[in-house]
Amino acid sequence: MIKKAVVLFSGGLDSTTTLAIARAEKYQSYAISFIYGQRHYHEIKTARRIIQQFDIKDHMILNIPLSNIGGSALTDEIEVPKNRPEGHLSNNIPITYVPARNTIFLAYALAWAETLNAFDLFIGVNALDYSGYPDCRPEYIKAFEHMANLATKAGIEGQKFCIHTPLIQLTKAQIIRKGIKLGVDYSITHSCYDPDESGRACGYCDSCLLRKKGFKEAGVPDPTRYIKDK
Amino acid sequence: MIKKAVVLFSGGLDSTTTLAIARAEKYQSYAISFIYGQRHYHEIKTARRIIQQFDIKDHMILNIPLSNIGGSALTDEIEVPKNRPEGHLSNNIPITYVPARNTIFLAYALAWAETLNAFDLFIGVNALDYSGYPDCRPEYIKAFEHMANLATKAGIEGQKFCIHTPLIQLTKAQIIRKGIKLGVDYSITHSCYDPDESGRACGYCDSCLLRKKGFKEAGVPDPTRYIKDK
Repeated sequence: MIKKAVVLFSGGLDSTTTLAIARAEKYQSYAISFIYGQRHYHEIKTARRIIQQFDIKDHMILNIPLSNIGGSALTDEIEVPKNRPEGHLSNNIPITYVPARNTIFLAYALAWAETLNAFDLFIGVNALDYSGYPDCRPEYIKAFEHMANLATKAGIEGQKFCIHTPLIQLTKAQIIRKGIKLGVDYSITHSCYDPDESGRACGYCDSCLLRKKGFKEAGVPDPTRYIKDK
Repeated sequence: MIKKAVVLFSGGLDSTTTLAIARAEKYQSYAISFIYGQRHYHEIKTARRIIQQFDIKDHMILNIPLSNIGGSALTDEIEVPKNRPEGHLSNNIPITYVPARNTIFLAYALAWAETLNAFDLFIGVNALDYSGYPDCRPEYIKAFEHMANLATKAGIEGQKFCIHTPLIQLTKAQIIRKGIKLGVDYSITHSCYDPDESGRACGYCDSCLLRKKGFKEAGVPDPTRYIKDK
């Protein structure tokens, strides 16, 4: 019997690894990506390229009005903070936090899953090497899953939605090592919050720093194209 | 001190009454409405007219891509069921159910609330005279509220989001009586799933039947314009 899964997919390092894990676990994947007025719109172009390397059943790209709501450096005209020296990550919840973003993403994924008769959702959240976002923590995911089963027709008819978070307890280095074992080509994945027009990474935002640190700790050459590179 | 609230507002009987209740409870209201490819797009026009009668701080109308996902007679090219004879309501969850709709709506409302520093959300769901939707039940709302407080920066910083459902245990007749006491003009509210171009109600969908029954039981003349009316 075919097991279907809806996979939240941004084209970044974490969600690409998550897609590879769903594939390794024999799920037929339906990827969902969001255009939400993010500065890193480039990630959608990347997502399309990566998708071609996977045997995906369908890829839904939804244009959602998050920038109307605002409140984040990722959707507003607020400067994305750059951390110097390298390796210094900001504490607390950063201004790149987008209010209720994962809740909105998961809500759409849940809606699509229900129409597909898919009861497995994958999201590449990570509670260790992460940026301090509240909606990446295990207790949040568990609460969303509980809510999802009460929210839906499928849920009250006895189906059980399960939200898989295969990366949640991994360090960035462990994620990278896992992905490489599963054949992920990280050279085309994209993490930077503030890339240039050709998609090269800034090298200094939280997301770049976490990614760099991950490759370093994994002992794997970092294939990312940075702006400072020639 | 000003108490701010985000109120989910469709222009229908229930959400208009909810807006009147938030006003009576001295909240400064921020109304949020959604265009989601619904057949009853007319309700947004109605919503705008009603808003003018309330002292609303802001009204956000978001165009969201629910029809891409499908799975409902309200967003797809599926015929809205008509029930005859009048008064006979369908059992089970009807095909007008939109997968995860209230979860998506509440997720946006939560995002906006967080940016506004508003910790009170109002939604006019109703668990008695309702259409059998799972995401209108008290246990669902409670689960969403719990999740919301884990999802957000405000939540983990000690604020507490509260989802108010002032209609949840009322019959349609009780809602109408309450609204009339609060000065609601129901002649411009709109409930029909399948109105004609001028906004007249079909009179036979679940929503029309519930509304008709409500006015009858409340002993109040039904001010709705029906298609069969001259």
